[in-house]
Amino acid sequence: MADRESIGVGLMGLGVVGSGVARTLVEKNRALAEEIGCRLALKKILVRDLSKPRAVSLESPLFTLDPQQILSDPAIQIVIEVIGGEQPAAAFIKQALLNGKYVVTANKEVIAKHGPELMEIAQQNGVSLLYEASVGGGIPLLLPLKQGLPANEISAIYAIINGTTNYILTKMSAEGLSFPTALKQAQELGYAEPDAANDIEGIDAAYKLAILATAAFHTIVRPEDVFRQGIARLAEHDFRYAKELDYEIKLLAIAKKVNGAIEVRVHPAFVPTDFLLAKVSGVYNAIQIEGDLVGKVLFYGEGAGSLPTSSAIVADVIAAAKSVIQQRELGAKGLSRSARSPLIASHSPFLALAIKPISELQTRYYLRMSVADSPGVLAQIARALGDRSISISSVIQKETDTDAQTAEIVIMTHPAREEFMRQALEEMEKLPVVKEICNLIRVEG
Amino acid sequence: MADRESIGVGLMGLGVVGSGVARTLVEKNRALAEEIGCRLALKKILVRDLSKPRAVSLESPLFTLDPQQILSDPAIQIVIEVIGGEQPAAAFIKQALLNGKYVVTANKEVIAKHGPELMEIAQQNGVSLLYEASVGGGIPLLLPLKQGLPANEISAIYAIINGTTNYILTKMSAEGLSFPTALKQAQELGYAEPDAANDIEGIDAAYKLAILATAAFHTIVRPEDVFRQGIARLAEHDFRYAKELDYEIKLLAIAKKVNGAIEVRVHPAFVPTDFLLAKVSGVYNAIQIEGDLVGKVLFYGEGAGSLPTSSAIVADVIAAAKSVIQQRELGAKGLSRSARSPLIASHSPFLALAIKPISELQTRYYLRMSVADSPGVLAQIARALGDRSISISSVIQKETDTDAQTAEIVIMTHPAREEFMRQALEEMEKLPVVKEICNLIRVEG
Repeated sequence: MADRESIGVGLMGLGVVGSGVARTLVEKNRALAEEIGCRLALKKILVRDLSKPRAVSLESPLFTLDPQQILSDPAIQIVIEVIGGEQPAAAFIKQALLNGKYVVTANKEVIAKHGPELMEIAQQNGVSLLYEASVGGGIPLLLPLKQGLPANEISAIYAIINGTTNYILTKMSAEGLSFPTALKQAQELGYAEPDAANDIEGIDAAYKLAILATAAFHTIVRPEDVFRQGIARLAEHDFRYAKELDYEIKLLAIAKKVNGAIEVRVHPAFVPTDFLLAKVSGVYNAIQIEGDLVGKVLFYGEGAGSLPTSSAIVADVIAAAKSVIQQRELGAKGLSRSARSPLIASHSPFLALAIKPISELQTRYYLRMSVADSPGVLAQIARALGDRSISISSVIQKETDTDAQTAEIVIMTHPAREEFMRQALEEMEKLPVVKEICNLIRVEG
Repeated sequence: MADRESIGVGLMGLGVVGSGVARTLVEKNRALAEEIGCRLALKKILVRDLSKPRAVSLESPLFTLDPQQILSDPAIQIVIEVIGGEQPAAAFIKQALLNGKYVVTANKEVIAKHGPELMEIAQQNGVSLLYEASVGGGIPLLLPLKQGLPANEISAIYAIINGTTNYILTKMSAEGLSFPTALKQAQELGYAEPDAANDIEGIDAAYKLAILATAAFHTIVRPEDVFRQGIARLAEHDFRYAKELDYEIKLLAIAKKVNGAIEVRVHPAFVPTDFLLAKVSGVYNAIQIEGDLVGKVLFYGEGAGSLPTSSAIVADVIAAAKSVIQQRELGAKGLSRSARSPLIASHSPFLALAIKPISELQTRYYLRMSVADSPGVLAQIARALGDRSISISSVIQKETDTDAQTAEIVIMTHPAREEFMRQALEEMEKLPVVKEICNLIRVEG
């Protein structure tokens, strides 16, 4: 082993995740060499500021401000991209692939927006693009999906894939906090960014769902295909009613194959308390995958953080390194580069399945509204629903405010088509007895 | 694709699992060919009775009573072994590997007892032995453990890996059934064999744990290394107290690395109700793996059954088939067989870590006993524990039987060494006031 040439690694980005990766590569260098059969040599690290003190003890000649020191160095075979954001990360990944380097990334935005094109470039250049860390942090997810369940036709994915919002919802549910208070706590603990829009509006979850759905259904799902609704409208009342009805409220990322079309959506949902997904609390993630053979399988773990994410990144680096070694060995045995195909490649052709618009969704709904406390109100509301064949499964009327002469009504419906539900809401909003439609939440399970 | 030679598959065994595999290979032949890039041809099926009617529609010339029709047929590159039991399955697998065939098996007994030797033979013969289906049914487990978490040092595995016992325990907990009644229900539903010893004594779980621990710790763990205690002693009372104390009782398979030694044990355990493992009910399995980088990850799904097990077997067949193709391509490019290494191989050398005896276990205990209903009894029991530095965390005294003048005492201890606990039990059994030590259950979490 000692006599084998090492494999050169370039690291782009040294933030929270990058530091974890650098530390793992340095501290576990020996164990990794045993696993791979060859040593990994961390050659260069792209940083934004050379003078910044670093938590990891690294030799300073490793640092560079110039991406070309990594992208154009023939001694580097594997590039790890952990800069985050769309650009320049996407351009760096593309150039690295074009230069015949394996690329490992945790960048969900780049993979969700440009993954299929970049994988094509990887294949053309005899290398691989690996992105296990882009969804579910350290939880092995894309690997078991692609290599553990390939005999299945996947029918559905139900996932909690944003730890920040799950932390906020857990606090709101368990401690009765308001959304702003729970968000503030999450920010103070570092679980949420000062600008939390990416998380609370479901943008982050939509990126991850697009990646999962693309892998599961062999069709290209773009982030803009994903219907998206955030958690900011959820109120203490909703959690109280949810509990009363035996549900938890979770921000679910759902991808389903229905009659050959793909349904992809991220929104708060009522989840029955006896579902395992309802029991996933705090910053943890869980991804339930349903296949025709395997039934339901669920993967659970920390969906973010320096070390969990490093676990996934370094697993990909190991796979890339093993591929580099096999390519080298075949080269040494006289095979030309073009005769050697990359050893980690997806054989599944991309289909072009249609994306189902949200208006065609069939689901149950929870509807909370504030109405005038007078006779006949429920009849008017029931008519607005009934006219569109939406039938009511249960009604709770509560919290009469005698001063304002209003009451709160909560309605659970049977499955209904989303466009009819929206029409009914529009009509209800025009009713003089309806003071406010407070919330409409989809019910799963 | 159509012009490529197909890959020959031989199936040994056509029971519940074998029928699922055969059906999958036949019904999904086209989709599998797309995934693999080459068609799988099911050449022969070893059965015990040629005249038995089959649920799968297969051409009868496929059936054979002679294992050599598969093991010695050069047109078969992949052998699937789903006969079960140690022999002749182990001998068949060995011969198939020696004949240069890839082997896929669901046989936990063979892998637990002979896995390391058979993998050695596979490596020497340029092929692979794949056994994802041997643990956790359809749940991808060995794949994410080996390829998804290779950067981690694994510290612990906590698993529910026997669906039959989990079904029985779920019934006892939820419906207050006695063990014999719950077992009978499980047998009537086909979840338990008429002779259920393998399941209820933890033998099946011990095989699976040995396989998991060997993979996780890179050391050879044999079934006989696993401390094993079954569920037959559990009584309704234990479940009632567990609930009162906020625990569920589960048959856990636990593997831990403690100071460089391996602790492997299968026994009923108290699991706090807020742990995800406590919420795994019915025939479902769940495996929690703890690594230094990833933290805790959990994998959940159906641990048995025809289709879930077929999902894992066919995933392995796909991996083997891709390897066969690459070997062929390299052969076509002029590389000799000896110059081509098998593409799915474990690089991890086997360590030889010590197995920790159960006497050295440190854990908390639940102890239920029947005692004389007279003053000073608790003091005598507490002294037997205290003399061995075992401290009590809580005591419940209940169920006084005035006729028999006995009372039931339940003691929860703080962490204590198992050998001291056993000494204390021996002493307590000699106390005239102690009528019976009803149960001692280890407490996890």
